[in-house]
This record gives sequence, structure tokens and C-alpha cells, in this order.
Amino acid sequence: MADPVEFYFDFSSPYAYFASTRIDRVAEKGGRDCVWKPILLGPVFKASGNTLLNDQPLKGAYARMDWERLSRFMEVPYGLPDPFPVNTVNAARIFYWQDDRDRALAHRFAVAVFHAYFADGVNVSDLGALLDIAEKSGIDRDHAAAATVDPSVKKRVKDEVDRALERGVCGAPFFFVDGEGYWGSDRIWMVKKVLAGMSGF
Amino acid sequence: MADPVEFYFDFSSPYAYFASTRIDRVAEKGGRDCVWKPILLGPVFKASGNTLLNDQPLKGAYARMDWERLSRFMEVPYGLPDPFPVNTVNAARIFYWQDDRDRALAHRFAVAVFHAYFADGVNVSDLGALLDIAEKSGIDRDHAAAATVDPSVKKRVKDEVDRALERGVCGAPFFFVDGEGYWGSDRIWMVKKVLAGMSGF
Repeated sequence: MADPVEFYFDFSSPYAYFASTRIDRVAEKGGRDCVWKPILLGPVFKASGNTLLNDQPLKGAYARMDWERLSRFMEVPYGLPDPFPVNTVNAARIFYWQDDRDRALAHRFAVAVFHAYFADGVNVSDLGALLDIAEKSGIDRDHAAAATVDPSVKKRVKDEVDRALERGVCGAPFFFVDGEGYWGSDRIWMVKKVLAGMSGF
Repeated sequence: MADPVEFYFDFSSPYAYFASTRIDRVAEKGGRDCVWKPILLGPVFKASGNTLLNDQPLKGAYARMDWERLSRFMEVPYGLPDPFPVNTVNAARIFYWQDDRDRALAHRFAVAVFHAYFADGVNVSDLGALLDIAEKSGIDRDHAAAATVDPSVKKRVKDEVDRALERGVCGAPFFFVDGEGYWGSDRIWMVKKVLAGMSGF
């Protein structure tokens, strides 16, 4: 099988959430696996000189309207969570700890975190809420809790963020196909075309 | 006929240039006219707290790669101009002056300005170059020159920028369909769907 599609995201990004509901199927149709890579937008925004979309004049209002519209267009359940955004470092830690042991389980957890935050309004920065999601996804609660304070897991998340920055990841979602980057849920059409060996618009 | 699609752009925006090669046909297929509205991204960026994409770490490099890629995907001739970006206020002034007199001629001029800058690398902030383009497009050279210093035309451009900001325009290209805004060349698919009365992704 050809190299997997890589999907970089922050659990707190609405655009990444919308993309997460499509990218596995897009990769599969293209004969590829899809590797999920949670990162933290905080350091990415710092490196790229960006600020949170939600806080920006004009663009914040546009984005909030756009997320509601994407929810209707894509038929994906969504509500702007409160608080928004939240720190997702613990979600990323649990994900990578589990990903090294059982990828399918880690994937199920990631899907559940996105859904809890954007469809059910659960504050996924709250450790108790996060451990509930882990447990419901089939992850051992104590192991998940331990992962959030494990120095090697902390380092793993930091390394993934650093690696993403080295590779030019400047926002989320960000996809790589055969080493080339595609930024934004709006570029899934292009990922589809590339996977099908086509160009055109 | 239903309300026209409105297309806000800066002549110096590569994404607007790519969109300009598609949006008329998209509007026409949807049974709509398309109204072109050149504005200046300087005041828009000031209002939205944004900076030039090209100058941003990570995002600048991504954008430069992305423009080359869009050129290939869309089969639109493109090279990053030097200097880039440039001040496009005179192009906007000539456009609106002509637009009030002959819309087709103004449109032809706008297409020619985009092409000169992004396909042929002509510095369209240079008044002589701009007047050459105007003349080749069929606009009277002296009238075009006069438009660039006419206080009422200057005010017209300023008013169009102010109106765009009031309407939430936060970048370019920015489209309006029936009062709702769509930002980015990546949203042409959505404009198409909306014009066809469809949703889905």
C-alpha cells in the first residue's frame, strides 16, 4: 500500500472536526490508510505569527457563521462549545499513548473526543470528562490518567508538534499526501483528486 | 433575474486571480450575473488584524507553494510577480470610473490587469503600465489617467472598501450570494451548490 494520508489536527479546531468526519473515507477511496496526528495549535500559531480565528475582528464573526454553515452543508452535528477553544494537550497525550498500543482504539477515542466537544458541548480540557470519554472508548481509565502525566508521553506530544512545525504545518486541519501538504478542510477536494491521480478544478 | 453574485477582490491577491478565472462561469451557470468589486486588502487587513500572507512565517511558504499548485490544478498561467504585492488603488480607480460608464469594458480591463500581473509579471502599480493595459482594453488613456486623480473616483474606491468592511469582508476573494458571504477561492464549490439550490459535500 502507498504511504498513508497524514491528518494533523487540534481537538479544539472546528475545521479539523469537520474534516475528521470525511478524511478516513477519502483516504480509503484512494487506497490509502489515514494516520491521525493530534497537535496543539498554540505553538503553531506562535510560530506562524497567527492568532485564534475566533478572537479576530471580522474573521472571527465569519468563522462562527461558517462553522454553522458547514454543519448544515456537511450534515455534521455541531455547536460552538463553551468554553472555546480549550487546551487539548491531555487529549493528545492519551491519544498517542493509546496509538502506540492499539491504533483502532486511539482512533475511536479521537472520534469520541471531537464528537463530545463539538456535538455534545463537553469540555474536553476537563480531565474527568476526558477520562470518561477514554473509558467509554474502551481505554483503561487508570492508564489514560497516567498517560497525561507521563514524561515520555508529554515529550511525545511535544515532539509531534515540533515535527509538524518542521514540516510546515501552519494550521489545522493539515494533510500530507506523499510528502506534500494541504491546509484546510477546504482542501479535501484536492486531496481526493491527488489520490485519484487527477488534476483539474 | 435573481440578485447578482458579488465578487470582492484586490488585484494583487493570487487567490482572487485564480477565482477570477472561474466565478463568472459559476454565476452564469447558476443563472446569475456577476458583479466585480475591486477593493484594497490593506484596510481590510488593518481592520481584521491580519498581515500579508506572503510575509508570514510558515503560512507564507505554504501560500507560495499553494499558488504554484493551484496554477497547475486549474490550468491558469501564473508566476509570483516581483514586486509582490503591489498597491492596486489606481487599478481600482480606473475600474470603477469605467464600470459606471461601460461594465463590459471595465470587466475586460480587470481581467487584463489580473493577467498582466500574475501571468506576465507586469508591475500593475506602475501608472504607465496600467494606462497601457487600459488602452489595450479599449479604455481612453486620458480618461483613465484622469480617473486616478479624480477626487470623486478616489472617494468611490474608499466607499467601496468601507462598504466591504461593513459587510464583513475579511479577505479576498470574498463572494456574496443573496447577502451571505463566502470567503476564499476554496469556497467556489459552495457558491456553486448554493446557486444550484443544493447542499452536501
